[in-house]
Amino acid sequence: MAAEMVPATNDVRARDRLFRAAIELFNRMGYAATTVREIVEAAGVTKPVLYYYFGSKEGIYLAILEEARKAFQARVDAVQQSGGRVRERIFSLSRELFRLFRENIEVVRLVHAVYYGPPQGAPPFDFDAFHYTFEAVLEHLIEEGVRVGELRPGNIRAMVTALHGATGACMEIALAHPEVGVDETELDQVLEVIFEGIARQKRRDKEQHR
Amino acid sequence: MAAEMVPATNDVRARDRLFRAAIELFNRMGYAATTVREIVEAAGVTKPVLYYYFGSKEGIYLAILEEARKAFQARVDAVQQSGGRVRERIFSLSRELFRLFRENIEVVRLVHAVYYGPPQGAPPFDFDAFHYTFEAVLEHLIEEGVRVGELRPGNIRAMVTALHGATGACMEIALAHPEVGVDETELDQVLEVIFEGIARQKRRDKEQHR
Repeated sequence: MAAEMVPATNDVRARDRLFRAAIELFNRMGYAATTVREIVEAAGVTKPVLYYYFGSKEGIYLAILEEARKAFQARVDAVQQSGGRVRERIFSLSRELFRLFRENIEVVRLVHAVYYGPPQGAPPFDFDAFHYTFEAVLEHLIEEGVRVGELRPGNIRAMVTALHGATGACMEIALAHPEVGVDETELDQVLEVIFEGIARQKRRDKEQHR
Repeated sequence: MAAEMVPATNDVRARDRLFRAAIELFNRMGYAATTVREIVEAAGVTKPVLYYYFGSKEGIYLAILEEARKAFQARVDAVQQSGGRVRERIFSLSRELFRLFRENIEVVRLVHAVYYGPPQGAPPFDFDAFHYTFEAVLEHLIEEGVRVGELRPGNIRAMVTALHGATGACMEIALAHPEVGVDETELDQVLEVIFEGIARQKRRDKEQHR
């Protein structure tokens, strides 16, 4: 990078302001419609500061997503390194990812807009990794739970989807209706439903009675 | 409507072609970027034909959504008018809505793009009605199930979210990864998990042993 590109003051707060301004503008106007000039004006810095930290509009966009990916992986790793009952670890994992989702709801909005929105010319990013990682960890936890006798044997793929769906449903409410204020307590209750089941008489009970 | 706006041939297939062309263009280019001219060219008709049937670009967009809403309501009504065990009706409702979702996946894509995407100037539409209707019917079914002793008493709100989440998770896979080919069989298996629970020893069992 040429020396003249380096801003006079290496102000880490300038990087943060650019980050936040970009997220806000991408969400309000769309990624395609947002210009570098609008981002630097909203952040109160000059263009070279953006180029110094991020290289380009694509660069700041990818930095936003990469930071989200790292934060996601850190929560997953923390749960994977923890011990205790499988049930507690599944609750923990779901809760941590739901909390991260809510803490970064504006980045989540941007991800949804690019993933589901019309083509906006944004550089490619592996959004599916979030889902696949969550599902892979759930799958390992369920397998362990069945092995140690904490969970019943059954269709593990369907169990993963049920648990993923529970967290996904709470996430969707948090995203579409923040005014509802859905929180970890509600998520716990939904996970509890999946652990306990909603049928009064279980097929297993019936089988035992035969 | 002025007489000169009426197309020479009242060709119902022209309406269908316009409908399909609009969905395809809105998805490929975005609602905002699509013009009436592009829609009529793709449909092989003239502008007055579009104006005759739909009035405007907004009109064709709202007609697409309104048709989806009617089809959705028809499936909900059919299940509500059916009898049988609550379990079967919950499975039926979820399956029917999942099937409708898959049959209209391109309209679903459009709904997601407008709902989650950047502002595109599309006229307002009550997208939330789909979710709220599904949840209201699930809630009534669960309440009935508890009343007749088919389902265990518990947190009905959490049960609704668990069931909604199951269908939502299958829908999301169908939308994001059509190549996986998730179908009603998988959905049934996920619903089965929620009815039966995944814990080996239920809290209720433990309580009975005290």
